[in-house]
Amino acid sequence: MPKPRFVPRIRVVREETIILGPGKADLLDAIQRTGTIRDAAAELEMSYMRAWNLVRTMNDSFREPLVTTTRGGSEKGHATLTETGNQALKIYREMERAAEKAAAPVFAKLKKLMN
Amino acid sequence: MPKPRFVPRIRVVREETIILGPGKADLLDAIQRTGTIRDAAAELEMSYMRAWNLVRTMNDSFREPLVTTTRGGSEKGHATLTETGNQALKIYREMERAAEKAAAPVFAKLKKLMN
Repeated sequence: MPKPRFVPRIRVVREETIILGPGKADLLDAIQRTGTIRDAAAELEMSYMRAWNLVRTMNDSFREPLVTTTRGGSEKGHATLTETGNQALKIYREMERAAEKAAAPVFAKLKKLMN
Repeated sequence: MPKPRFVPRIRVVREETIILGPGKADLLDAIQRTGTIRDAAAELEMSYMRAWNLVRTMNDSFREPLVTTTRGGSEKGHATLTETGNQALKIYREMERAAEKAAAPVFAKLKKLMN
């Protein structure tokens, strides 16, 4: 039987709004990798509209936008992570790693109870 | 503006199955508190069928069932956490606390970037 494992998922929230979570962090990753919101959305199998809404929520929640886009010219449609975007993503991943590392020894106790 | 905060959500998985996560842990809590799966389901606004399915998934994933129920007699419908159920819930909450504590200082850095 495959071994059980655990995944720490961090939600950064303000009231009912998720400012940053697993989905938004993956979107930032995909934008960084693909260079456009359209390709990032396709990769994550979400609609372009939904990806834009997630970007807008993130951009509105930080002092500086996390993602900027080029509206015209030869770079039209290009999306890029700002310095703040890069930092936010990096810190978020660091939170995930810190959570995982701290919970791992506790999980070892849970595993003993499992099949 | 209300302050941002973060919530660590731990998923214990085996392949695609979530063995224990926020919803199942809350269900165990509610069963412990209410003493029946029906009342626990109502409290969490989930169907009785769904609550039973979650209980079955948990019970099948551990060496001992986490929840036992009384099928007849004056205690009919009564549900209770087993010793393993109590332990699993306690360890799960401990994982959440460990994750939160470890991620908190990292989150302080993220907050500085936020509105």
